[in-house]
Amino acid sequence: MHRPIVRVFLGVSLDGCIAGRDHDLSWLECVSTDPPEDTGYADLMAKTDALLMGRNTYDAIANFDPWPFEGKRCLVMTHGEIDDDRVECANGTLPDLLSQLGDEGVHGVYLDGGSIVRQGLAEGLVDELTLSWVPMILGEGVRLFDGLPEFRQRWTLTRSRSFPSGLVQATYRPVSDRS
Amino acid sequence: MHRPIVRVFLGVSLDGCIAGRDHDLSWLECVSTDPPEDTGYADLMAKTDALLMGRNTYDAIANFDPWPFEGKRCLVMTHGEIDDDRVECANGTLPDLLSQLGDEGVHGVYLDGGSIVRQGLAEGLVDELTLSWVPMILGEGVRLFDGLPEFRQRWTLTRSRSFPSGLVQATYRPVSDRS
Repeated sequence: MHRPIVRVFLGVSLDGCIAGRDHDLSWLECVSTDPPEDTGYADLMAKTDALLMGRNTYDAIANFDPWPFEGKRCLVMTHGEIDDDRVECANGTLPDLLSQLGDEGVHGVYLDGGSIVRQGLAEGLVDELTLSWVPMILGEGVRLFDGLPEFRQRWTLTRSRSFPSGLVQATYRPVSDRS
Repeated sequence: MHRPIVRVFLGVSLDGCIAGRDHDLSWLECVSTDPPEDTGYADLMAKTDALLMGRNTYDAIANFDPWPFEGKRCLVMTHGEIDDDRVECANGTLPDLLSQLGDEGVHGVYLDGGSIVRQGLAEGLVDELTLSWVPMILGEGVRLFDGLPEFRQRWTLTRSRSFPSGLVQATYRPVSDRS
């Protein structure tokens, strides 16, 4: 049994939002001049066998055309059902689900969406964390890190870089002496 | 009448905290190997004629030995009084206070403390914003950006760099087309 490598790759405003009020994403346009081949998203997808997201994230992207995850296994953690043959419904805990994916030969998992990312971080399940700070303050919005329980996780910086748009991107792996 | 240059220079955890629970700052030790001459704090202080902070920040640092702001004007925004000849009590609005300091020949102001920084950002009074992301997630703590009103401020990245400790630092100036 092996556990897959779990990656998080998120764009956040300087005030830590992954979306504005009412889940608005229009503010991300200010960094859309940085192509995904440059910012590492294309590399991430190449290393991703399966995506794991929450129901809210699925609902937010279900109507995207084209479907952004063509050719990838895409699991939605939900107790309900989804009538969409592009995705699989999964329930059970995040650790169990990751073990199960490992048993099925999945090497790289991409966790997507605030709630599931918070859960992965709080439970120490994230192996690689990439944050891309968008040069914008929203004031109000959906904050990535709101509602975490108390824990302390130190990270090792493995890479940092900036882009012409002003995006600053840093990639970390966890230090094991978590408290 | 001129307005001084207003600078913010803060260390934040990856989850946006400037302090842990109960205002704990011990987690900052993980980046203490980066000396202040390297991380720009010494440069900032050289450009600072006056510090402006809230009462909570003053209370948190009042017993620091040595006093970190020796030789600088240090204004504490409070409606109360403080029996400490190292500081001046100031009341009035932040814009009025900045105008007044400008009239008195102050060129560089350093805003310190979460509450006053939030106020400066919300009112569009910050000319230079430096955020230093400490490679740590605290889960719970004092979040710099909690409680901002809704506004959108785009920033231009003027510098970014990383340090051996894993600190990632970015400096921004505001784009003027604020909404």
